[in-house]
Amino acid sequence: MEKVREIVREGRRVGNEDPRRVVHAFKVGLALAFVSSFYYYQPLYDNFGVNAMWAVMTVVVVFEFSVGATLGKGINRAVATLIAGGLGIGAHHLASLSGPTVEPILLAIFVFIQAALSTFVRFFPRVKARYDYGVLIFILTFALISVSGFREDEILDLAHKRLSTVMMGGVSCVLISIFVCPVWAGQDLHSLLASNFDTLAHFLQEFGEEYFEATEDGDIKEVEKRRRNLERYKSVLNSKSNEEALANFAKWEPRHGVFRFRHPWKQYLAVGALLRQCAYRIDALNSYINSDMQIPMDVKKKLEEPLRRMSSESGKSMKEMSNSLKKMTKSSTSDIHVVNSQSACKTLSTLLKSGILNDVEPLQMISFMTTVSLLIDIVNLTEKISESVHELASAAKFKNKMKSDSVSTSSAVPIKSHEGDSDDDHHVVTILGDVVTSNNEGQSHGESSVDSCHHVAIEINDDDSIHDKHEEDSNVHVQTSRVSCVHTNASDLLNSGDIKK
Amino acid sequence: MEKVREIVREGRRVGNEDPRRVVHAFKVGLALAFVSSFYYYQPLYDNFGVNAMWAVMTVVVVFEFSVGATLGKGINRAVATLIAGGLGIGAHHLASLSGPTVEPILLAIFVFIQAALSTFVRFFPRVKARYDYGVLIFILTFALISVSGFREDEILDLAHKRLSTVMMGGVSCVLISIFVCPVWAGQDLHSLLASNFDTLAHFLQEFGEEYFEATEDGDIKEVEKRRRNLERYKSVLNSKSNEEALANFAKWEPRHGVFRFRHPWKQYLAVGALLRQCAYRIDALNSYINSDMQIPMDVKKKLEEPLRRMSSESGKSMKEMSNSLKKMTKSSTSDIHVVNSQSACKTLSTLLKSGILNDVEPLQMISFMTTVSLLIDIVNLTEKISESVHELASAAKFKNKMKSDSVSTSSAVPIKSHEGDSDDDHHVVTILGDVVTSNNEGQSHGESSVDSCHHVAIEINDDDSIHDKHEEDSNVHVQTSRVSCVHTNASDLLNSGDIKK
Repeated sequence: MEKVREIVREGRRVGNEDPRRVVHAFKVGLALAFVSSFYYYQPLYDNFGVNAMWAVMTVVVVFEFSVGATLGKGINRAVATLIAGGLGIGAHHLASLSGPTVEPILLAIFVFIQAALSTFVRFFPRVKARYDYGVLIFILTFALISVSGFREDEILDLAHKRLSTVMMGGVSCVLISIFVCPVWAGQDLHSLLASNFDTLAHFLQEFGEEYFEATEDGDIKEVEKRRRNLERYKSVLNSKSNEEALANFAKWEPRHGVFRFRHPWKQYLAVGALLRQCAYRIDALNSYINSDMQIPMDVKKKLEEPLRRMSSESGKSMKEMSNSLKKMTKSSTSDIHVVNSQSACKTLSTLLKSGILNDVEPLQMISFMTTVSLLIDIVNLTEKISESVHELASAAKFKNKMKSDSVSTSSAVPIKSHEGDSDDDHHVVTILGDVVTSNNEGQSHGESSVDSCHHVAIEINDDDSIHDKHEEDSNVHVQTSRVSCVHTNASDLLNSGDIKK
Repeated sequence: MEKVREIVREGRRVGNEDPRRVVHAFKVGLALAFVSSFYYYQPLYDNFGVNAMWAVMTVVVVFEFSVGATLGKGINRAVATLIAGGLGIGAHHLASLSGPTVEPILLAIFVFIQAALSTFVRFFPRVKARYDYGVLIFILTFALISVSGFREDEILDLAHKRLSTVMMGGVSCVLISIFVCPVWAGQDLHSLLASNFDTLAHFLQEFGEEYFEATEDGDIKEVEKRRRNLERYKSVLNSKSNEEALANFAKWEPRHGVFRFRHPWKQYLAVGALLRQCAYRIDALNSYINSDMQIPMDVKKKLEEPLRRMSSESGKSMKEMSNSLKKMTKSSTSDIHVVNSQSACKTLSTLLKSGILNDVEPLQMISFMTTVSLLIDIVNLTEKISESVHELASAAKFKNKMKSDSVSTSSAVPIKSHEGDSDDDHHVVTILGDVVTSNNEGQSHGESSVDSCHHVAIEINDDDSIHDKHEEDSNVHVQTSRVSCVHTNASDLLNSGDIKK
């Protein structure tokens, strides 16, 4: 009894986790009940007889959760049945020419060679990824047709019936999976990527609070809840196989919603891989949030401003990328945040050079500097990710941002003067602020510097080619989408510094 | 033509990568040819008729690369066919009681409910992991039996024949896969883990050379080859899904070689997860090898000795663990290296406290300290891994090391005095040296300290319970297997230091 209750509870959990699973179960039941009716409906039964079972079998085996997986398996099965049927008949004919004693031996040899070759081919990575099921069905059908033909003369008729019933089963699956509450692998991959962006963005935006203030908080439950929320990023660490499977299925899917048939799913994997790299850094960073408690707050506070900005601006930029993915619009707002985070990097290195940490104990330095270096890594990765998303946006032909859209979510203020900012040796060129996402940070948001800084090389290109692309971003006056930051790693900061090698 | 040549080349590559693939292909061909002979052999055909095709089908679908996967699928299929057959007959009987008009409707409802429920159950994580295939076959068989029964009266006979042919097919697969060049998933998992240890050990042992000397090397090809060798660790980063699949298969396998039926495969996953964590750190470390070139060598050299020892001793300890896995013997040699690496940690922190780096520029500190902190992490992870391997060794009942073995590979010299070592404020308790693996490092190897160090707490327990276990390690006089180092992370070093919070 306890066992039953536990199963029901587990069932509820599984259903709540993704309600489409319940719908899928109903769809399979529907398809199977429909296909079994071939047995009851006299005209169909007269035509196909026991071969109707192939329709049942096809439905059970082919019907998968997403449209892409179902289509992939269905097409694999249909094509493999067709080819193997043809070859099987050929093999049977060839063998039958050789007389009744040699025939079974010859057939056995055919089956052996075919099975061994095909089984070996299944190890080819490219075959394994997309055609594994097809080859399996090929082996099966060839063996069944060529051998069973040994007994029946109506082998052609058999092959024909089997193919028709397989087709009928497959088509039922595909139609039901497309037209009854479809689950598109492509859509899922798209949402997965956007949600990965969101979780990383959430972590980075909250990091400052957590790192510089967490000690004061008292309520344990509150703290735990916040930590659980922060650690949602962990799902990104192991998302690789999931993403690859979805991309594989998505390739089979026809145009649906905003996705074309040849949507650049591969580029999703590229962005996903970079995000995962970033998640590894975040994982390391996370382990330092707690242990860095031992560093005195006054040491941390020395670098608070640039560190907070680096992480929150990277976070905002990821949030922007996630929005741009969700709306499938091109957006350059994320670039602005990338530039901001890079300028914070620069402020950081200026501070460090000024010797602000000279009196800090070396042991404290170890872990503090690790945190710093991880954040620098994350800033640089964010830039790479941003580039990769731009590539995705143009490959997938995202729309340019609508005017109404950009008015409602952001407003950019171009300022071309020294606005009396705290970092007074910077030549402030651009201030482009995203009102919604950055209004909670008053100080010096949205600035980018092109002075003679020797460790972060920022170029601002205002050439027309880019301008053309973003024509509709009418309120973004100064292009910042071509930002390149040459350092890729904490110690590359040193590269162009004034250090003797 | 070019295409064909390419396919042949690819085939050769796939075959060379793992020659057992070729053997597997032959085995499948053999099994299939054998099972098809049911059609030719008159007595068998008279008995089973077209039902012989179920044997063919079973072989094609059930025969997998490893014994475990084949057994798992075979058992799933057999049990599912048995239960679904019984239920199918029951459903058919129940429906037939209701009269000819209601019967098909009732049957359709049965099929629908059964398919929907079973499909939903397939989403349960525990079912998905081990019984997914069984549930699939359950849906299939139930539908086929209950529905086809609508036409045939010999439904019992049908179910019986189908079950027997499925059994025959399944048993052929299992027998061939066990007795013809078997591929054991358990053995594979075991070797995979050992080889993961080896690649990480290789990296750590070479790290010192690479980090402190690489600049001098001229030959580009040589350097590239070395780098490729070093970067073999990357395969460990994504080994998770592979390990899980192998462990899943291994659970089905009977006793083979040195592995019992209930070998603790789960513990392999635990060790694997820790190794992967270590590999993440190594991945980060690797990115610093190149970029840290910008740090002047004289800065690096200041910490060269402890850093080199930390990485090489961790590497040696992993190498030892790999050996202990390969030979399936308990070994405490790895603990000695763990202790050594921890004592190097301690030397490092003493050096740092002495202010040796006070005159280093903060920018250089960032990346150098990151390297240091990563190495500290790795030392701590190595300890955890070592504990985890000990757990595995006792759970899997590894043998104690043979005397002849230990004499040939290591010799331990217990010394209980101040042996005039360079670090003169340490109370040297134990020197246990592994001659083979550490003879290339003369200075102060194999020492462990129990002075009043306040950041690395090392306890040396010499209680009998442990001594008993290692009775046969007669030449290891002082037990060091119960070493616990409280810090888990670079900044925990600070925890117990003399720093005000």
